[in-house]
Amino acid sequence: MASKKINILKSLSIERLNAFSDGVFAIAITLLVLGIAVPEVMPGPHLNEELTNRLIALFPKVLSFGISFTIIGIFWFGHHLLFQYIKKIDRNLIWLNIFLLMVISFIPFPAALLGEYGYAQPAILIYGLTLLIVGILFATIWWYAARKRNFIDDSLDDHMIKKALNIILLASMSYFIAIVVSFFNPFISLLIYVLIPILYIIPSPIDEFIK
Amino acid sequence: MASKKINILKSLSIERLNAFSDGVFAIAITLLVLGIAVPEVMPGPHLNEELTNRLIALFPKVLSFGISFTIIGIFWFGHHLLFQYIKKIDRNLIWLNIFLLMVISFIPFPAALLGEYGYAQPAILIYGLTLLIVGILFATIWWYAARKRNFIDDSLDDHMIKKALNIILLASMSYFIAIVVSFFNPFISLLIYVLIPILYIIPSPIDEFIK
Amino acid sequence: MASKKINILKSLSIERLNAFSDGVFAIAITLLVLGIAVPEVMPGPHLNEELTNRLIALFPKVLSFGISFTIIGIFWFGHHLLFQYIKKIDRNLIWLNIFLLMVISFIPFPAALLGEYGYAQPAILIYGLTLLIVGILFATIWWYAARKRNFIDDSLDDHMIKKALNIILLASMSYFIAIVVSFFNPFISLLIYVLIPILYIIPSPIDEFIK
Amino acid sequence: MASKKINILKSLSIERLNAFSDGVFAIAITLLVLGIAVPEVMPGPHLNEELTNRLIALFPKVLSFGISFTIIGIFWFGHHLLFQYIKKIDRNLIWLNIFLLMVISFIPFPAALLGEYGYAQPAILIYGLTLLIVGILFATIWWYAARKRNFIDDSLDDHMIKKALNIILLASMSYFIAIVVSFFNPFISLLIYVLIPILYIIPSPIDEFIK
Repeated sequence: MASKKINILKSLSIERLNAFSDGVFAIAITLLVLGIAVPEVMPGPHLNEELTNRLIALFPKVLSFGISFTIIGIFWFGHHLLFQYIKKIDRNLIWLNIFLLMVISFIPFPAALLGEYGYAQPAILIYGLTLLIVGILFATIWWYAARKRNFIDDSLDDHMIKKALNIILLASMSYFIAIVVSFFNPFISLLIYVLIPILYIIPSPIDEFIK
Repeated sequence: MASKKINILKSLSIERLNAFSDGVFAIAITLLVLGIAVPEVMPGPHLNEELTNRLIALFPKVLSFGISFTIIGIFWFGHHLLFQYIKKIDRNLIWLNIFLLMVISFIPFPAALLGEYGYAQPAILIYGLTLLIVGILFATIWWYAARKRNFIDDSLDDHMIKKALNIILLASMSYFIAIVVSFFNPFISLLIYVLIPILYIIPSPIDEFIK
Repeated sequence: MASKKINILKSLSIERLNAFSDGVFAIAITLLVLGIAVPEVMPGPHLNEELTNRLIALFPKVLSFGISFTIIGIFWFGHHLLFQYIKKIDRNLIWLNIFLLMVISFIPFPAALLGEYGYAQPAILIYGLTLLIVGILFATIWWYAARKRNFIDDSLDDHMIKKALNIILLASMSYFIAIVVSFFNPFISLLIYVLIPILYIIPSPIDEFIK
Repeated sequence: MASKKINILKSLSIERLNAFSDGVFAIAITLLVLGIAVPEVMPGPHLNEELTNRLIALFPKVLSFGISFTIIGIFWFGHHLLFQYIKKIDRNLIWLNIFLLMVISFIPFPAALLGEYGYAQPAILIYGLTLLIVGILFATIWWYAARKRNFIDDSLDDHMIKKALNIILLASMSYFIAIVVSFFNPFISLLIYVLIPILYIIPSPIDEFIK
């Protein structure tokens, strides 16, 4: 009977955990747009000009929206890939995943902050820190699941497991560097934020893992 | 083993990509209502009158809500139809779809902008531009998937494939015209925004593709 | 081949239409809480007292939240029951359903309006009007699906079909009466808004249809 | 025929009720971040310092976000566990569940309130009261379902049923104590709010039920 209950827990979790995770990813990614508020312009003869200026001034917010959307998209994609190979979960893994979702659902805040104060070091710091924590949680989840080899798919060999971990750590390392660099040159940090997603989207060595 | 992993990627993607897309569509469409704020009216003997006036003044926002909801509804419907015939996906298609979702989830902003400044050319421009980009992404997805004939359902012949593309391009073209026209007569652009959805809802030649 | 495509459309729609509808219902119902804003109170020696007063003053908003949540819950429940018996859909039914979702997703606005100006006739009018339109759309969907008897489940006899329609029309009629009454006595309208949901929740003749 | 309809109701409900519940949980948990607004800082030579101060001042809001996210996560987890053993539902259970979702979807308000006025007794009271009501609804759902033994899985013996109820009541009791204590020492109440989730996350006697 005990083993039966474990099975119930298992069957419960993978499927509904994924559905719940997908829900949180989809909502967090869609809430990003709330960081872009409609500008308030006084009606008058110069409304069109002023509105145009105010809309152009929104560019950093739209850029932050675009970058953050892409990053959450990558996280969603990565979550899929990992949990595709994770065949068994326990309480620890469920909670690691819930804490991951917590940081994912937090992203609209640093994204709005970066859209508002993209030139300011504290905003760049908070943004990078949030993404770094996401990376660490992803790495912990994968490390924990792969540790005993009995939580993940048999078809994965040691080389693949390590490769996946490296791909996760590469992003975390980049965000860590971006945080450190922000104290000296915030502009370079912003550049790193823009470049990392591109690295994960274009066909690259990262691709090998999912092929 | 390589082919097995490709299968896993494939099985992962179509189903969960659709579920994720549906989630983003459902959230974006439901966030539109946040563009209509409750008016602030001072309590007093004329509250009812003033509240009525303020509610009547919300009409452009409600209209923008209605049009935008219908348009996202059409996009959702179109997404279904296309991905019903798409039987295989790759990394490029996943990312084209994520960028499509990015623009879909952005719609609440131009919708709120149009509701606030419906008479102003910049608002009309941004609205049309957003919808134009959605159209171009839809066309690219369909073109990419149909290109090699091996991503889409065998039951589709060349005529159907082209027809579907034309239906997508018709909307994109209309939004492009609306943008150009907005520089001369914003009112006609608004009319185009109202009329295009109707064209896609009523039974028409467009229907043929889905029948 | 034509019939094959109709089947595809059919299989597409019922399942994903329901999932999409569930998504919109779930989001609209959860957005209701955004109508209750945290009061702004100046820090000081009387903060606790003032905060308590401000929280008590939120009671109408919490009440509107509760009523509106229950009403959307009933609509969700009703949507389930109807679409459980609807076995086939066409383009018209899809669009009737999308327009129904449009009005459902609009509910957070009249709900917030009622929470703010519950004593004012225009707010009561807009609230009732929204719910009335939902009722009319539900009735139209059911009437349209049941009309030819080939869209709905064979196990339903004429008596059941009519009964379902009557249950829908009963609510619509009540909301219509609430609107008319609001011009004379807004308080009675509010009472109707509170009482109708109760009628649909407690075991009653309405129950018979679903048993 | 009557029994057939009961079956339809049953099949409808468990699956779609769970999906709907998951949706509401996922949205409510993701809306929590909206309680943390981007601070408004005047551009100037001291922007970085002031922004840093304002971000540090957001700590109580981030803490409330973290606690509330964890608590909703626990509720979601608990909902899963209970409804895993509930094999049959009726109208009462559906409505008990909808009222549970109502209070869950309300949580973003007391969470934002606690983030803003975490030191004030009324905020602590409302927060605890909301969680207490969730606990009571969970207990009622479980008590109602287990009462006749025909709604829940046969594999559960009386000991397990009672244990589950006790686990639910333990949290409710703790929140009740936190409310009472808040009149004397709000700080201890806050401590209880932080500690209870930890009790439910770490492996503990609570674990036994789900193993």
